[in-house]
Amino acid sequence: MLSAPVDDSLWQQQVRALIEAGRELHARGWVPATSGNFSARLTAAEIALTVSGRHKGKLDEAGIMRADMQGRAVGSDQRPSAETLLHTQLYRRYPEVGAVLHVHSVNATLISRAVQRGGAHDLVLAGYELLKAFHGNTTHETSLRVPVFANDQDIPRLAAKVDAWLDANEPIHGYLIAGHGLYAWGRDMAETLRHIEAFDFLFECELRERGPCNA
Amino acid sequence: MLSAPVDDSLWQQQVRALIEAGRELHARGWVPATSGNFSARLTAAEIALTVSGRHKGKLDEAGIMRADMQGRAVGSDQRPSAETLLHTQLYRRYPEVGAVLHVHSVNATLISRAVQRGGAHDLVLAGYELLKAFHGNTTHETSLRVPVFANDQDIPRLAAKVDAWLDANEPIHGYLIAGHGLYAWGRDMAETLRHIEAFDFLFECELRERGPCNA
Amino acid sequence: MLSAPVDDSLWQQQVRALIEAGRELHARGWVPATSGNFSARLTAAEIALTVSGRHKGKLDEAGIMRADMQGRAVGSDQRPSAETLLHTQLYRRYPEVGAVLHVHSVNATLISRAVQRGGAHDLVLAGYELLKAFHGNTTHETSLRVPVFANDQDIPRLAAKVDAWLDANEPIHGYLIAGHGLYAWGRDMAETLRHIEAFDFLFECELRERGPCNA
Amino acid sequence: MLSAPVDDSLWQQQVRALIEAGRELHARGWVPATSGNFSARLTAAEIALTVSGRHKGKLDEAGIMRADMQGRAVGSDQRPSAETLLHTQLYRRYPEVGAVLHVHSVNATLISRAVQRGGAHDLVLAGYELLKAFHGNTTHETSLRVPVFANDQDIPRLAAKVDAWLDANEPIHGYLIAGHGLYAWGRDMAETLRHIEAFDFLFECELRERGPCNA
Repeated sequence: MLSAPVDDSLWQQQVRALIEAGRELHARGWVPATSGNFSARLTAAEIALTVSGRHKGKLDEAGIMRADMQGRAVGSDQRPSAETLLHTQLYRRYPEVGAVLHVHSVNATLISRAVQRGGAHDLVLAGYELLKAFHGNTTHETSLRVPVFANDQDIPRLAAKVDAWLDANEPIHGYLIAGHGLYAWGRDMAETLRHIEAFDFLFECELRERGPCNA
Repeated sequence: MLSAPVDDSLWQQQVRALIEAGRELHARGWVPATSGNFSARLTAAEIALTVSGRHKGKLDEAGIMRADMQGRAVGSDQRPSAETLLHTQLYRRYPEVGAVLHVHSVNATLISRAVQRGGAHDLVLAGYELLKAFHGNTTHETSLRVPVFANDQDIPRLAAKVDAWLDANEPIHGYLIAGHGLYAWGRDMAETLRHIEAFDFLFECELRERGPCNA
Repeated sequence: MLSAPVDDSLWQQQVRALIEAGRELHARGWVPATSGNFSARLTAAEIALTVSGRHKGKLDEAGIMRADMQGRAVGSDQRPSAETLLHTQLYRRYPEVGAVLHVHSVNATLISRAVQRGGAHDLVLAGYELLKAFHGNTTHETSLRVPVFANDQDIPRLAAKVDAWLDANEPIHGYLIAGHGLYAWGRDMAETLRHIEAFDFLFECELRERGPCNA
Repeated sequence: MLSAPVDDSLWQQQVRALIEAGRELHARGWVPATSGNFSARLTAAEIALTVSGRHKGKLDEAGIMRADMQGRAVGSDQRPSAETLLHTQLYRRYPEVGAVLHVHSVNATLISRAVQRGGAHDLVLAGYELLKAFHGNTTHETSLRVPVFANDQDIPRLAAKVDAWLDANEPIHGYLIAGHGLYAWGRDMAETLRHIEAFDFLFECELRERGPCNA
């Protein structure tokens, strides 16, 4: 597929948004040890994406690359992260999605392991006012289901499981991979960061209420 | 009601106080995901108030609006948050109140859920030197009662419950809404921030002493 | 008593040290809600001392006053904190002490309450390499005794209990007041800050090892 | 042994790397109360090393010294920390190692005490995606063994135990000393910092999953 031309000012804007998101998320301790990866939509056919292995709190333009919706590099010979497919499947599925952030917070790691240990396949969050932080929610009198997938180094296989879940269920704003972290998305970077902040807050509440004994 | 004229330098001063309070409270993690709302008194008839849905750590003047004591916008067509009534009822009741801050910290969320789960309607804080941080307290040999109201998306109904409680009890400096957060107030922004800091400190102490099992 | 003349550059140096200490300690959350008070020695007869009720993270020169060794204001009509006696008794007892810091961290508050609840009068810290952070300790194969005094709004009575304890025991670098906080001292501000950091680290270790059930 | 000439720009580069590492690690609370020590390789025969007892968040060039591979000062009469041997044994053993960082985080302290209390001699970390942050790991389907040595003020004796362990086992990226802290290393400062961040994240996960009762 020929890549659609990308406006340079749009590229610069998304690069700045990714660098600033990295600074904020690293300061929170949510992308330790070069973990995590971030993307922002450029066009219907392309995204801007962090290059694998970079310090997420100290990104620069050289740490951002272009990729197409099949997860192949565009305009460079940099190798996209194997996890790129987990980003592009969301942009392909949801035309309104403008940003995808993947973080490895301690809270996301622990709650996903706790759910898995308990034999469940999702986490249900209920009764929190902060549920209203997710796009489309207007009341705390609701519950939010967060699927937890088993971790898998075979990313196409993992992406297929995510696709199957998304096909069969109501739209969501994020999911967990057990012992690994959180994928979250939104219409733009600000909304995606808001979703990430809300997820981590709720994961911390759940972990602290359960305690280690019941976690 | 005709709105009383508001001195521009007073407006600017309160705008700066609200922006700075937002920066401090967001840095503490107490207003995640655009949650919370803040206000400061302008006159007997008007307050300056954060516009709903803004990032509280990155407020600017456009994120602050004027509202009257019935919670209606003044001098703009911005829609005040539904929760504005929870601010204005305090300014109407207490002429000396100069600022009201509503935050969503993890500690406020968890302690309010713990109290509610335990079947109680208030939290009693006792034996802490930091009780002296609340205006009017001069000793740790006292106890502070913090009412916990059930969360409710019907704000006029919630405001009526708060009014009824305040009518029937001694003056307080803040209350909790279960699973939602803390409302606190004071004579000016500095005192209100001091109360917020003291409340959160005491909520953290209570939660860590109780532990998850007894929380 | 006539106050000894204080060199202005020494005053400026101690003011800067107190302001900077306040910034660091507030950033750690150890002096919430204007709690805590700090002092630094000026001469054999005078100290520089924080004025009561100031925000400890935003001190300026107007927030620092001079006091004599009986805790009376020198060269101003500002009222020293009632707790000034707890500072001056240390400067009088130990000619080598150059700074005294009193903080209200959550860890100091909780460990002091836990010791008191357990019916003990001191906390014994053992087996930590960080014990070597205290002046005079050269090995982890030692134990550090931290007395815990009951809180008391009658400061002369509390100071007398502290004096009696110090008369009867080996020299220490700090003590706890239950539900209140930590007093720590050292030969200069840097050493005192080092002692504060070490104490809080060790209190956190103790609290996390005990857990709420055994705390 | 004659010291090999050290290029001044290399010295400056390593000094800057050590200062910046100190700032980051102190901001995380991992080198409290002047604890910890850091080094970076200069040549096959020399390292740059922090002078003992300095505030690790406020290092300057005067706080960095040169030492040879036997841990003796080079070009100055500053006394290297007794623990220097724990650095130089790693540079001697692994020619590819470019930096060694020793930190005293609460998490490292507590997990090492918990392992020792449980009668074990190592910590086994398994099932975490973040295991991939360690050089050479490409999957979470692995486990990482972190030896825990008893603390010892006799550093040559402790260094001999470390050497014996390293002789007998597969290469590792770090080890714990009980009640003391973590030693970690890598090919350069960025990799070593990445390892430190990953270790602390995993220690926190382990501690929070175990809880105080089982820790």
